Amino acid sequence: MIRKYIFGSPVQTGAVIENIPVSKEHPDFGNIVTMTPFCWKYTMQHDTRIFGLGESVRGMNKRGYLYESWCSDVPRQDEGTKSMYGAHNFFIVKESSLHETFGVFFDTGSRVSFDFGYSDYSEISVSCQDTGVVLYVITADANRGKESTLNNITRQFRKIIGMSYVPPMWGFGYQQSRWGYKTEDDVREIVNKHKQYGLPLEAVCLDIDYMEDYKDFSVDKKKFPDLKAFSQELKNDGVRLVPIIDAGVKLLDGYEVYDEGKENNYFCKKEDGKADYVAGVWPGRSCFPDFLRSDVRAWFGSKYKNLTDLGIEGFWNDMNEPAMFYSDESLAAAFEKLETFKGKNLDINTFFDFSAVSGSTFNRLDDYQRFYNRAETLEGEQKPHRHDTVHNLFGGKMTQAASEGLKSLMPEKRCLLYSRASCIGSHRYGGIWTGDNNARWNHMEQEIKMLPGLNMCGYLYSGADIGGFAEQTTEDLMLRWMSLGIFTPLMRNHAAWDAREKELYRFSKEATDSFRSILKLRYALLPYIYSEYVKAAVNSEMFIRPLCFDFENDRRALEIQDQLFVGEGIMIAPVCRQNENGRMVYFPEPMIQVTWKDGKTKCKNIKAGDSYIEMPLDSVVFFVRKGKIVPLFEPVMNTSQMKNNKYDLVGKGKSYELYEDDGFTSDIHLEGRIRILR
Amino acid sequence: MIRKYIFGSPVQTGAVIENIPVSKEHPDFGNIVTMTPFCWKYTMQHDTRIFGLGESVRGMNKRGYLYESWCSDVPRQDEGTKSMYGAHNFFIVKESSLHETFGVFFDTGSRVSFDFGYSDYSEISVSCQDTGVVLYVITADANRGKESTLNNITRQFRKIIGMSYVPPMWGFGYQQSRWGYKTEDDVREIVNKHKQYGLPLEAVCLDIDYMEDYKDFSVDKKKFPDLKAFSQELKNDGVRLVPIIDAGVKLLDGYEVYDEGKENNYFCKKEDGKADYVAGVWPGRSCFPDFLRSDVRAWFGSKYKNLTDLGIEGFWNDMNEPAMFYSDESLAAAFEKLETFKGKNLDINTFFDFSAVSGSTFNRLDDYQRFYNRAETLEGEQKPHRHDTVHNLFGGKMTQAASEGLKSLMPEKRCLLYSRASCIGSHRYGGIWTGDNNARWNHMEQEIKMLPGLNMCGYLYSGADIGGFAEQTTEDLMLRWMSLGIFTPLMRNHAAWDAREKELYRFSKEATDSFRSILKLRYALLPYIYSEYVKAAVNSEMFIRPLCFDFENDRRALEIQDQLFVGEGIMIAPVCRQNENGRMVYFPEPMIQVTWKDGKTKCKNIKAGDSYIEMPLDSVVFFVRKGKIVPLFEPVMNTSQMKNNKYDLVGKGKSYELYEDDGFTSDIHLEGRIRILR
Repeated sequence: MIRKYIFGSPVQTGAVIENIPVSKEHPDFGNIVTMTPFCWKYTMQHDTRIFGLGESVRGMNKRGYLYESWCSDVPRQDEGTKSMYGAHNFFIVKESSLHETFGVFFDTGSRVSFDFGYSDYSEISVSCQDTGVVLYVITADANRGKESTLNNITRQFRKIIGMSYVPPMWGFGYQQSRWGYKTEDDVREIVNKHKQYGLPLEAVCLDIDYMEDYKDFSVDKKKFPDLKAFSQELKNDGVRLVPIIDAGVKLLDGYEVYDEGKENNYFCKKEDGKADYVAGVWPGRSCFPDFLRSDVRAWFGSKYKNLTDLGIEGFWNDMNEPAMFYSDESLAAAFEKLETFKGKNLDINTFFDFSAVSGSTFNRLDDYQRFYNRAETLEGEQKPHRHDTVHNLFGGKMTQAASEGLKSLMPEKRCLLYSRASCIGSHRYGGIWTGDNNARWNHMEQEIKMLPGLNMCGYLYSGADIGGFAEQTTEDLMLRWMSLGIFTPLMRNHAAWDAREKELYRFSKEATDSFRSILKLRYALLPYIYSEYVKAAVNSEMFIRPLCFDFENDRRALEIQDQLFVGEGIMIAPVCRQNENGRMVYFPEPMIQVTWKDGKTKCKNIKAGDSYIEMPLDSVVFFVRKGKIVPLFEPVMNTSQMKNNKYDLVGKGKSYELYEDDGFTSDIHLEGRIRILR
Repeated sequence: MIRKYIFGSPVQTGAVIENIPVSKEHPDFGNIVTMTPFCWKYTMQHDTRIFGLGESVRGMNKRGYLYESWCSDVPRQDEGTKSMYGAHNFFIVKESSLHETFGVFFDTGSRVSFDFGYSDYSEISVSCQDTGVVLYVITADANRGKESTLNNITRQFRKIIGMSYVPPMWGFGYQQSRWGYKTEDDVREIVNKHKQYGLPLEAVCLDIDYMEDYKDFSVDKKKFPDLKAFSQELKNDGVRLVPIIDAGVKLLDGYEVYDEGKENNYFCKKEDGKADYVAGVWPGRSCFPDFLRSDVRAWFGSKYKNLTDLGIEGFWNDMNEPAMFYSDESLAAAFEKLETFKGKNLDINTFFDFSAVSGSTFNRLDDYQRFYNRAETLEGEQKPHRHDTVHNLFGGKMTQAASEGLKSLMPEKRCLLYSRASCIGSHRYGGIWTGDNNARWNHMEQEIKMLPGLNMCGYLYSGADIGGFAEQTTEDLMLRWMSLGIFTPLMRNHAAWDAREKELYRFSKEATDSFRSILKLRYALLPYIYSEYVKAAVNSEMFIRPLCFDFENDRRALEIQDQLFVGEGIMIAPVCRQNENGRMVYFPEPMIQVTWKDGKTKCKNIKAGDSYIEMPLDSVVFFVRKGKIVPLFEPVMNTSQMKNNKYDLVGKGKSYELYEDDGFTSDIHLEGRIRILR
């Protein structure tokens, strides 16, 4: 059951696509304690749990901390990080008895603060910066059968926000990336080395290095003299290029994209409604397309043609929170402030002020209050909104621009598309990667905890930078993280320019052999992962789920935060501590342990309950659920070589339903189903 | 068996106090591959483990990462942090078969880099910046009986570096601290609130706020008009004050400490040997006593009289890496560099340079190369050494200065003393807290992993800021961390000025009740903790040990990194993940589970193996080892009320040996032993 309530005058976010009648009465759960700002409170029981909130740090159960939906460029993430790149305002309050479990979605583009028992351990408090918010409250269907309240409420929510983006089959292949692949030759070497070492490879991502002076939709001819020919050269080996596109457009007269944007007033404006707003990003001073306008989206989307004409079929959109390194205003203020420190004895009262100044211009709230977006009200009226009141929609609307543009440029193809910033709604247009993480074991563990929330909010196509984007990774962390990464739809090894080189052939011979084996498993599992992904998208289900979503009456399962179900048949329990060669795993039901090593499987029955499972660094261990089978196909070097005819089956189930990808349509062809029988 | 090798011309660090003959042959383990810089390498087996390195991040088993001994002011610690506040160059290479387990200690005051299988997963590589190093290689005694190689090698090492500092009994009480207790009234309120809520309290720490203009050994009379009377007022309630002392002395003519230091040439000098070196810390421009000189130590130690005369019996020494916010030189360079950015279009190539400038002056290597310390060679020659070549000795020598000063000021008392920076050797003079951590669950887990290494290196009196120094703690993290903190010798709740207020009465009523119960357990256990601590100090043993130190042939125990033995009879397995109400615990032998709630115990037998143990937030769960008993005394509000006559016994052992503290001597009275019989 879904109830919808409207408070104030919200903007049209586009998150919900189903028409739901508006309830006039007071919501059945919690209290609205103030209207300006809008604040909703709910009293928790001793054992109340909270699941959801998409891209956010800490546990699967979010109780006990503060979170904030405010799309942010957060190069340093840790447990204290309140805001990530996405704004995913949906969560489920799970009660165990007497009280009813329910889901809530705060549909707004403005900042939302979630106090999940931080200030008062027994109270949830949600405040929206803007008074305009549409609130959806969802309770489980009485006739849901054996489905848990958690799965049922999630399914209802996912239905009203529309089907999740489905990438082409090749989007499930292994992507290699690094900020720092500067030239055609750099990329060619990466591809050749993968071939040389027998490492499967699907795509190479191009970070900002490929552009000319960091101009969107440009290619630096000195580095990539003929990208079209080069793209074709790689495609002959089944390898694709995936270039980056940034949100900011370099302010430069004579640069086509800038000129068009300026001429047509496509850029975000200052308060006067006339001057384009200017802020610094990679190319220096830049302007920002007002992605909240459909005409601007259509224009920006059409610019991808510059690259699709060269044979490109996949993109990642970045810096679209939008990140702003500085504005003209904040930079001037910084220089002015710096002057005041000259010649002083800098003590505790002044030194820390000084030391913060030159780094103080990043992503400032006051900068976000200096420009405007034209957004639509629920009644369809388009008018300027100060950016901070619609901030969280910006990145998601850029994804929509790209998706719609690509669809119109290549109606016969599904394109690969993922973004850094996002909001609920943009899950229909693309996936997300989880941003600039670090080469830390606890960041790998964080990914495990974050994926379920993302799935709840529609982001099925997701994954973290394997091995960590920033900082220095280690051979063992790469091995463990790859063993997790093969189960995430988006599987990408990406790194910062100053991080350790971590292409899979950069480590010891033993490690390279293990990486090869791990990647082979990814390709062996790919038809399963693809099929389960499509089923989850079509049926509004979660591809990746916490144990308790399927076992909500199992007290132990309710607390497991480092194991996951992947599709209908697989459970994983990654090792995420350095120097541990195994771990305790909780089995809510009997399963088959599958140990994959050197391309071969060993199977073993495991009883329900707790078991210590050996997980050597050179093996991948996963579990097949009771009554399920998982097909393992003959591994290939990339999806271009895939044939769906040779496979082994692991597990004891009777049949498995496979989806075949025709690769040529933007809709899911249900007729692509194939039943595999044991 | 200990072998000693001398390479180059090392300085006298004072770490080892036993006379060991120098071996002339090549060490039995590893190879010295270069002499300048000194570099030692060792090839690891597949299952080689590395334990030790004292204050360092990551796991108990340090394999797979890079560490650096370089005493550092590190307000942001995480898995990537290579250097912490201390320099503890001892580790054990644990081999499981065929190869022999051994310990190595690199005795030097210069920077040491440890590559524990980061560059090459099968190689240890240790490089010392200075060519002068004394290398100790320790193998297990053949006649060690049942003692593990790990415990035996550690004991041999601990014997040659001398007995660990033993604080007075009251140093094991609960200390409340915060950067921001500004006045006598602030402190009085803290003490009164603890009384009002029935929360035991032993001491209140005074951070830099109590000083006049951040001048060492001064008291701000506006804030503390009569510290002597106030100190006595608190002592009447059994509560002591523990003020902070910083390494840097404010440069201010007319300020006694500065004048004396300047007049007598006690401060570190620039290269010319004449000008005092100046760098900015809390009071602004400051000078730094050359603690490596015994005359300077004697002088600085005598200055504590200013505060001991007011009734102070405990201190913490801070900022003694030494931290340097800026030097005159680095500040001038920063201002100059900032000028170059004015009026430019700041793009990727320039903006990040700009944004880093004003924060670039902290703790710079080139600043540490601008001044000199007078250090003694092994032959006893005192001469200037560029600071960076003896950097790691600085903080430890400050501790020595304080300890020797206090001993001469109060020969009849043991004083409380702990430091931020340290090196092996200073463990004889004081304890350490583990510096500026954060309110994160993974920082709590880090403490568990760090304590064994500290114990190996002689730092028995140690503990982390409970609940985290920086960032915003939560009620549940405080509860869990307190439940760990009652088992660490140094038990202190400390916070940064901008962190959430976290005195134990600031949370919900239920939480306050639980904190009271947890603190009662600390005081109930205090005689056990004190006794076990003294035994460990006297017998060169580890007060806190990983499971594998007592069970080195147990493969599972070898990998457990989140459980600890505390003294001879207790095992703990703290919950260090949010929203988990229990956890899997590994029992290498049968034990008694003790659940402490509201001042009462419940006991339960647990079989060897893995068990899921419920650990509700309001209870403390610990385990008593096979054949041991642990006395639980009647809880008191602080040690001034302690009477050693009423106790319960938990566990099944036959007797327990208790040490009584007479509180009046700086030596341990072995005759203070009492045998408790069941």
